[in-house]
Amino acid sequence: MMVEIPDSHPRKKSLESRQKIVEGSSKGLLADSAMIAHGRGEAFDYLLGERTTKSAREAIRESAARLNNASSPVISVNGNTVLLAGKKALRLAAVLGCPIEVNLYYRTPERIAGLLALLEEHKTVVLGESEPEGFEGNWSDSVGAVSLLGSSPDFRIEGLEGPRSHCMEEGIGSADSILVPLEDGDRCEALVSLGKEVIVIDLNPLSRSAKMATVTIVDEVSRAFEGILSELIGNPNEAPTEWNNDSALRSALGEIDEFLNK
Amino acid sequence: MMVEIPDSHPRKKSLESRQKIVEGSSKGLLADSAMIAHGRGEAFDYLLGERTTKSAREAIRESAARLNNASSPVISVNGNTVLLAGKKALRLAAVLGCPIEVNLYYRTPERIAGLLALLEEHKTVVLGESEPEGFEGNWSDSVGAVSLLGSSPDFRIEGLEGPRSHCMEEGIGSADSILVPLEDGDRCEALVSLGKEVIVIDLNPLSRSAKMATVTIVDEVSRAFEGILSELIGNPNEAPTEWNNDSALRSALGEIDEFLNK
Repeated sequence: MMVEIPDSHPRKKSLESRQKIVEGSSKGLLADSAMIAHGRGEAFDYLLGERTTKSAREAIRESAARLNNASSPVISVNGNTVLLAGKKALRLAAVLGCPIEVNLYYRTPERIAGLLALLEEHKTVVLGESEPEGFEGNWSDSVGAVSLLGSSPDFRIEGLEGPRSHCMEEGIGSADSILVPLEDGDRCEALVSLGKEVIVIDLNPLSRSAKMATVTIVDEVSRAFEGILSELIGNPNEAPTEWNNDSALRSALGEIDEFLNK
Repeated sequence: MMVEIPDSHPRKKSLESRQKIVEGSSKGLLADSAMIAHGRGEAFDYLLGERTTKSAREAIRESAARLNNASSPVISVNGNTVLLAGKKALRLAAVLGCPIEVNLYYRTPERIAGLLALLEEHKTVVLGESEPEGFEGNWSDSVGAVSLLGSSPDFRIEGLEGPRSHCMEEGIGSADSILVPLEDGDRCEALVSLGKEVIVIDLNPLSRSAKMATVTIVDEVSRAFEGILSELIGNPNEAPTEWNNDSALRSALGEIDEFLNK
């Protein structure tokens, strides 16, 4: 049951996100601990003021430049990402011209199939939406061309054991740059060890994933997707910089500090 | 399925708590959003270093003195509290000589009954445990005397509407001091408005409950229960002080600050 939250509610977006996660969980699309992970994210987002901070904007700009310059980018999504920002992931993949791979830490064929079905539904919706302002390609062709991967894993991430190592060659297997929101620390580390550029979206600047990533965007996943998309369209010729991720994470911690001292 | 976490794991307690919540949820003992609330708590506990901080110790000492001086104290528990610290709540109630009332924001008769049944099971376990060191009464009499309330609400908390206003006269209704972990802001405010002393346990020093309470213990619920119990036994003659809760909350924020700057 989706409860209507009044527009005037100061935390409307946060409460709507919570409802999406609760609903997705009741449909069996999430692992047991996914709601707990969402709660942790809520707390950190709260401490960041539930907005894209200055340091996150810089990380978003850097990520857009890197994804734009990659030869084979991919967006790796888990259940929470599909529920919170599935349509935005599709819009971003359409602009980047890259596949989306459903890749789960606690992989079950049922959840992979359920999430892919949901993404297919989202695709129909996104096809009917207007193209992002400033987008110069053909929107329906671009959206239609987004491959939704994950159902038939034929590749393994070296350095990991069991189902969590499975992925698809066409997606994560052959990607040189991976945008992966809400990732587990071990997998993030394994992907980095393979020499891939790993761009993580994680609200906790102290998490292992945040520390392991090439670039960490400390922001809520749907805001981060929107931000990357508008950078790609607004600043398409931006080049990647020498990026100091440790210093970026320190800035994010400083922003939490500021919030606490307000 | 309870997974064994090695003793060496630095975050063993946190992971065990998470498992208790996941299990309780799968048994139908928790509301939809309880796991999300637990995740928020995890994040704040992480930022406090997963330990009882100095400011929490002071709030625990004050709370013990106030509960000890109350004429009708009560411990109000929700699903998360019963799952995370049900046995510790019983031990504390036995020492205080007070009832425990199961009181849920999203009240359903099924969940109340399930949580009361779990507390009854815990009671049998606690009866078989050794008494707290230094406890001078008769342990099995004291544990046996703890009333477990909540199944037949016959009282309403003024200022609240619907099922969330229900409680028992013998418990919250006639209490002058209420120890209530993980409470909702509205209910906390209503209880304070009734002139009751409200002692909240909440890991988020910025929550409405934390701000509304007479005394806020910014600590994990099972650590807080243990702390109050040992204060009651170790310092039974402690008197309540003029307590400045705002200043205590500022100290808790300062402790998070210190953690972030480490």
